[in-house]
Amino acid sequence: MRTTHDAFHLAIPTHDLDAAHRFYVEGLGCKLARRYADRITLDFFGDQVVCHLSEAWDRDPVLYPRHFGVTFRERADWDRLLALVRQRELCVFAEPSTRFEDLVERHSTVVLRDPSNNLLEFKHYDDPRMIY
Amino acid sequence: MRTTHDAFHLAIPTHDLDAAHRFYVEGLGCKLARRYADRITLDFFGDQVVCHLSEAWDRDPVLYPRHFGVTFRERADWDRLLALVRQRELCVFAEPSTRFEDLVERHSTVVLRDPSNNLLEFKHYDDPRMIY
Amino acid sequence: MRTTHDAFHLAIPTHDLDAAHRFYVEGLGCKLARRYADRITLDFFGDQVVCHLSEAWDRDPVLYPRHFGVTFRERADWDRLLALVRQRELCVFAEPSTRFEDLVERHSTVVLRDPSNNLLEFKHYDDPRMIY
Amino acid sequence: MRTTHDAFHLAIPTHDLDAAHRFYVEGLGCKLARRYADRITLDFFGDQVVCHLSEAWDRDPVLYPRHFGVTFRERADWDRLLALVRQRELCVFAEPSTRFEDLVERHSTVVLRDPSNNLLEFKHYDDPRMIY
Amino acid sequence: MRTTHDAFHLAIPTHDLDAAHRFYVEGLGCKLARRYADRITLDFFGDQVVCHLSEAWDRDPVLYPRHFGVTFRERADWDRLLALVRQRELCVFAEPSTRFEDLVERHSTVVLRDPSNNLLEFKHYDDPRMIY
Amino acid sequence: MRTTHDAFHLAIPTHDLDAAHRFYVEGLGCKLARRYADRITLDFFGDQVVCHLSEAWDRDPVLYPRHFGVTFRERADWDRLLALVRQRELCVFAEPSTRFEDLVERHSTVVLRDPSNNLLEFKHYDDPRMIY
Amino acid sequence: MRTTHDAFHLAIPTHDLDAAHRFYVEGLGCKLARRYADRITLDFFGDQVVCHLSEAWDRDPVLYPRHFGVTFRERADWDRLLALVRQRELCVFAEPSTRFEDLVERHSTVVLRDPSNNLLEFKHYDDPRMIY
Amino acid sequence: MRTTHDAFHLAIPTHDLDAAHRFYVEGLGCKLARRYADRITLDFFGDQVVCHLSEAWDRDPVLYPRHFGVTFRERADWDRLLALVRQRELCVFAEPSTRFEDLVERHSTVVLRDPSNNLLEFKHYDDPRMIY
Repeated sequence: MRTTHDAFHLAIPTHDLDAAHRFYVEGLGCKLARRYADRITLDFFGDQVVCHLSEAWDRDPVLYPRHFGVTFRERADWDRLLALVRQRELCVFAEPSTRFEDLVERHSTVVLRDPSNNLLEFKHYDDPRMIY
Repeated sequence: MRTTHDAFHLAIPTHDLDAAHRFYVEGLGCKLARRYADRITLDFFGDQVVCHLSEAWDRDPVLYPRHFGVTFRERADWDRLLALVRQRELCVFAEPSTRFEDLVERHSTVVLRDPSNNLLEFKHYDDPRMIY
Repeated sequence: MRTTHDAFHLAIPTHDLDAAHRFYVEGLGCKLARRYADRITLDFFGDQVVCHLSEAWDRDPVLYPRHFGVTFRERADWDRLLALVRQRELCVFAEPSTRFEDLVERHSTVVLRDPSNNLLEFKHYDDPRMIY
Repeated sequence: MRTTHDAFHLAIPTHDLDAAHRFYVEGLGCKLARRYADRITLDFFGDQVVCHLSEAWDRDPVLYPRHFGVTFRERADWDRLLALVRQRELCVFAEPSTRFEDLVERHSTVVLRDPSNNLLEFKHYDDPRMIY
Repeated sequence: MRTTHDAFHLAIPTHDLDAAHRFYVEGLGCKLARRYADRITLDFFGDQVVCHLSEAWDRDPVLYPRHFGVTFRERADWDRLLALVRQRELCVFAEPSTRFEDLVERHSTVVLRDPSNNLLEFKHYDDPRMIY
Repeated sequence: MRTTHDAFHLAIPTHDLDAAHRFYVEGLGCKLARRYADRITLDFFGDQVVCHLSEAWDRDPVLYPRHFGVTFRERADWDRLLALVRQRELCVFAEPSTRFEDLVERHSTVVLRDPSNNLLEFKHYDDPRMIY
Repeated sequence: MRTTHDAFHLAIPTHDLDAAHRFYVEGLGCKLARRYADRITLDFFGDQVVCHLSEAWDRDPVLYPRHFGVTFRERADWDRLLALVRQRELCVFAEPSTRFEDLVERHSTVVLRDPSNNLLEFKHYDDPRMIY
Repeated sequence: MRTTHDAFHLAIPTHDLDAAHRFYVEGLGCKLARRYADRITLDFFGDQVVCHLSEAWDRDPVLYPRHFGVTFRERADWDRLLALVRQRELCVFAEPSTRFEDLVERHSTVVLRDPSNNLLEFKHYDDPRMIY
């Protein structure tokens, strides 16, 4: 049972800790929790993302099957994320679009790429029951 | 700003949707939200994990840099997860252990492996401020 | 998406509104919300139960497939419910017992019978993730 | 005392587990928690509904006295439920209507029928104090 | 420290328990918790009001210094209370008005009278920080 | 519908604003919100109590039918209130006792008297469902 | 880990406890918790501010580096604070303005001065993720 | 009205941003939100502290009248903070002690000093109502 006191955590590769810091902290506005010689840990929208220094980063990223991100409950939060992406000129991998146009699962989506080619998807569903 | 109405979402590969269903729903006790021809979506401890049918699964998994999981706020929740792992004989990749024994970052950890070699880490920190 | 502001509601038959009032309000400690000529509505542990005056009540109740109740998160709440049942001598249909002894789904259960033979089950799971 | 960690639970009959799965999971968008040989358990809008394989299902359903459902606090959630019903062509037993037009108890209601003739009512009251 | 699990409780006189029941439960829409020979206890907007059968009721009520009620955070809740008062023709002691027109303490108020002449005030402040 | 943003409010008489301030703020540890020429308003355990300067105070107080107070959810909060009463030597009208010893309604109670003879009862029920 | 039950606390100098009381309680609408010979403690927007009688107050205040205040999540709360400042004619040190106009960090700000020259800043960010 | 979505914010001087980063992020375990040429902004136990590069730092710190910190609701959180202070050898300005031993205001306290001589007090009161 996950309560609001628990945190999802995700570990991903990075080839450059400073670049990761710039993208996640200065760009996306995440908070830096800790920095070690081989990794940084982030408060990523309330959960934990850890960027490990590693050679195993993806040279040729594709959206499926590996990506991660946040599904916002409120449209305004998705809009604000998009505004931040534009103002701070973050790298967009897939422009904003609408998926499943005629279905209950209809949602807005935008995909970013971090400096180590990890892909981040931010979504908003019209019907919040479709979040899962 | 992530509130409790938002959800982290993570997409991972699987070579077998039925096996993924067995591991996540019947094993870990996650809830099945939707099943499509090429993926299942899960309510994974309150967040969303999507298993995509894909050839890009990891034949030779190592813990770093890629894994995901939950950091529990309460010790009892970590203990219960471990009890479930034992009773249902889920595949353990790394036995329970304690990391950073003499540091504030001290935590308990156990790592599972799903049928497509995705690695899941479940943690509990003595000091909940170290969750990030 | 059901939030804590929403309510589950359940309509059940009763052959006697006064007897239903005595069982649910004076016995179980539910709160009476409204009384009409043909029904009473109750705040039943935070949700709504409506007892409709009807001839369609069950003369020969069996536990399956129809019953309803509450699954408590905290053991103390289940214990208190049981203490109330004893002190107020409510009608017990199935004595307290433990089901699925060796499984993760292990839980305590007690079943009551209201004056119109509706069956109420109150449960507590060792592992709260099994509530569903 | 029912807190938000507790769950209402309701057991109902079904003559076909697969049909129940299709209606509740693929149709209504509920989450499947567990499937056994003789029943499925569902996260039904945050509470638990269990569909038991049984011959005791209702061949000739009428709305009173037995039905169940959710009373939404927000109008938008009721509207979204109705939109889902239309898009996924769920079986409507009673078309949307308004009851108690000139009373404080005024509310919108729609009634669905599941494949085993269980009736589900979804409501929204103008005055949320009338939820009970 | 009063948390949301605690309840304010207020004991007031009544010369007629049935009349009190009609006013508070059937009129105001409060929920009846318990009825004894000499008193009824009510869930009054989330707190507890107890009406004691007593000769010490006020034959000639004035607003000051004794009255009680609820200060709503949201204007819509005050409006709905007023609508209920009109539809159910509850006894109004002081018609709706605005007090402290040019001050930060500006608020809307309406005062009701119960059958035993207890006075109930329902308020809404423009600035919620003035609730105290 | 009273949410945690709403406040119960109670107006009571006092013959001496300074004495009321000493009892409620310096004694009971309530917070002073505002002081006017003829009244003080208090944050009384999260709700609002207003002490109006008035001649209508009770020269000969009895517990029934008029008193007010707080019912605590947690025993520790009742114990702490009692410790404060002892340490600050507040005026006790009725010593701590247990009521309804053999009933589900069993609770601890203590009654204080403020300088204008208003009576305050602080309670704790073994079974929190009896709060109402 | 700071939860909503915890409180930030800040101690500041004042050369006049009565003047501090007038500014914070009668002006800003904070609640007085306690008064001692040498200090007053305040419930300042949910946190604790203590004004200590001291000669170490600032004769020549500048905004940087020392000031404190509240960053509101909702624009309406900032607007209401500003309305209160105008109606009660509190001392404004820096008129309302917008900072970082073209950045994600864009926010509205107003700075007040208390009678002992402590500076209070109240802010609202367009993007709530910039609160930190 | 400060809700949990709002944040207290405090601006303090520092003569060395790197030292401030080491003390607050690597030492106290606060999260870095943003770094500018002349300041860093921190998520300090859920509120915002900003360290401004400035010559106006205190060469000769005394505890009164200026300091800030957190009052914990739970004793365990105060104990954990103290354990962190010991393990990471943070600079203690005043050793842990108990104040107001025989009063309701009894509390534990410890005071730290940051590299620019700002003083931080962490407290825990036996009676949480004394937090203000």
